Amino acid sequence: MKKTDMHELRKDPLLGRWIAVYSYPRDPSDYSIHATENHEKDCILCPGKEDELPPAIMSMPKKSGSKRSEREWWTRVIPHVTPVFCGDGDLGRTGVGLYDKMNGIGADEIVIESPDHSKRPEDMGIEQMVRVITTYRERIVALDEDPRFRYTLIYKNSGKRAGALFSHPASHIASTPVIPKRVKEELDGAKLYFNYKERCIFCDVIREELRVNQRVILETDHFLLFCPYASKFPFETWIIPKKHSCAFQDIQSDEMKDFAYVLAAVLRKLRKTFNGLAFNYFIHTAPNRIPRKDHWHTLGEDYHWHVEIIPRLLTTSGFEWGSGFYILPTSPEYAAKFLMEVDYGD
Amino acid sequence: MKKTDMHELRKDPLLGRWIAVYSYPRDPSDYSIHATENHEKDCILCPGKEDELPPAIMSMPKKSGSKRSEREWWTRVIPHVTPVFCGDGDLGRTGVGLYDKMNGIGADEIVIESPDHSKRPEDMGIEQMVRVITTYRERIVALDEDPRFRYTLIYKNSGKRAGALFSHPASHIASTPVIPKRVKEELDGAKLYFNYKERCIFCDVIREELRVNQRVILETDHFLLFCPYASKFPFETWIIPKKHSCAFQDIQSDEMKDFAYVLAAVLRKLRKTFNGLAFNYFIHTAPNRIPRKDHWHTLGEDYHWHVEIIPRLLTTSGFEWGSGFYILPTSPEYAAKFLMEVDYGD
Repeated sequence: MKKTDMHELRKDPLLGRWIAVYSYPRDPSDYSIHATENHEKDCILCPGKEDELPPAIMSMPKKSGSKRSEREWWTRVIPHVTPVFCGDGDLGRTGVGLYDKMNGIGADEIVIESPDHSKRPEDMGIEQMVRVITTYRERIVALDEDPRFRYTLIYKNSGKRAGALFSHPASHIASTPVIPKRVKEELDGAKLYFNYKERCIFCDVIREELRVNQRVILETDHFLLFCPYASKFPFETWIIPKKHSCAFQDIQSDEMKDFAYVLAAVLRKLRKTFNGLAFNYFIHTAPNRIPRKDHWHTLGEDYHWHVEIIPRLLTTSGFEWGSGFYILPTSPEYAAKFLMEVDYGD
Repeated sequence: MKKTDMHELRKDPLLGRWIAVYSYPRDPSDYSIHATENHEKDCILCPGKEDELPPAIMSMPKKSGSKRSEREWWTRVIPHVTPVFCGDGDLGRTGVGLYDKMNGIGADEIVIESPDHSKRPEDMGIEQMVRVITTYRERIVALDEDPRFRYTLIYKNSGKRAGALFSHPASHIASTPVIPKRVKEELDGAKLYFNYKERCIFCDVIREELRVNQRVILETDHFLLFCPYASKFPFETWIIPKKHSCAFQDIQSDEMKDFAYVLAAVLRKLRKTFNGLAFNYFIHTAPNRIPRKDHWHTLGEDYHWHVEIIPRLLTTSGFEWGSGFYILPTSPEYAAKFLMEVDYGD
């Protein structure tokens, strides 16, 4: 991408939300409004296509040090083919009349989660899931070194209905020069609670969920899998570390294996419950703490990292977009009961 | 709906968002995850089916006073067949351990916008559009009388991909016992700006849009149709009254005709641009002012009603859900240029 192709970030003057505008205009005829399932014949993420893609940012080789290692990998991270956020240049914050804009500085990467097109990491044994999570962790740690990046979001789109571009198992990493609105709202909500109670709201939620035991699906040594009391989507689940920790990247190696187990379990449970399910998940972790240790001084106490997994079972309507109010046809208690009972072994 | 069937509203402890939980549980197998276009053979909204539906809340008869008027109407409002919000009982606000809940008090109504299944109001001449808007207005005015209702949202879902239940032209009215999160954010954002500038942010946006003239699609005596600078969706448009007014229901009769013209124009323009388009629109107006005149004392100055029209061209992914950050493949300037040039006559 040439520097002149850089996308522009614009701030909504009313809601404070940032949006990104592509620099090359897309015509109305370029939108496919009758979407169908994507069955690409020639998957560009499969092994053997490495030379057709931009060079890998990182790769977890099957045999380290060997010459063939470049083509034999467990996981691989590449730059996005049509990046929204890009690493060259400065922020260029400026006003435009009444409005505010800045350059689309950041990172936009694709994590190839499996060398095998048709094998998902959750079905490949715990080791592969650990590799995927280790890849996430290494990339966040590396991206945090750039002081222009305020936040790094790890997310996955699985299935066309969840916005997936590829059918090959993959997830995404996006670093943004602002703390995204949804994350800011969580940080603000958690801070408000902490200021009042002097306790982490997430730790209180964990205690409450274990106490009432109506929405817990799975509990391991280090993690809890549950359906939140006021979920936005039916069958939404969260994975949260039981021990207080604000940042996913601080995860310890024994916790890593446990986390991999729970993530694989919920994905397998969901797929067994809904055949052909489309879903998203994302990791909500603390903003980049390296360039602004002082500013986020209290963050360690009042924020708690977690993963939100959202099955795409319903179509959002004008009600949700106009109100931000959501409707759950299945209660979190009922969904938890269902998911708890689903076998997730082979 | 029996009183025991009442839905429960729950508050997200972190984000302050309310959600509604259905009281009768929906099983995983009740979700259709491979959605297809809905072609009902027997439309329950068509004339002649009045007796199979709950009694009309209001109706705009073709010939007033005649005996046949009940079956000959231009628009008709009926209670929702499976309401989320319902009018019986009290709010019942209470705590549940750590969490907060209340009863699903409110209103949930369907506006049948045309007696003809295949004729949309925007294609029936300006008179029909005026009738639809008059129906909206009359219902908001009536619902505002109930002090339990804090907000009434008028919204439309057109096309399955936009969450539509019916192919018959229809829109929805929902009254909620809380001010919805998205509306609250707008009120807060507008208040923040007003406190700083002592001017309405929407009035400033109108002046700025007319000054730069890059995103305006249509300007009439009383209204402006434009693509917002930081739209959330490509080809998103807003209709806003040029004269400051916080509430849609205060619209005057000469403005009504003008508003009907602009709403019909944008819907026709969008349908000509995107064949088979699914879209939503919603009216953002001030919260119910009758029971709490004092509380919303300044509201008249710092809020400005408007309509947001969002074409459903893209699938939201884990990035949008996880970050609240949106990506526009078509700039608002380019979209406005396209829509300005589209003919919207017969």
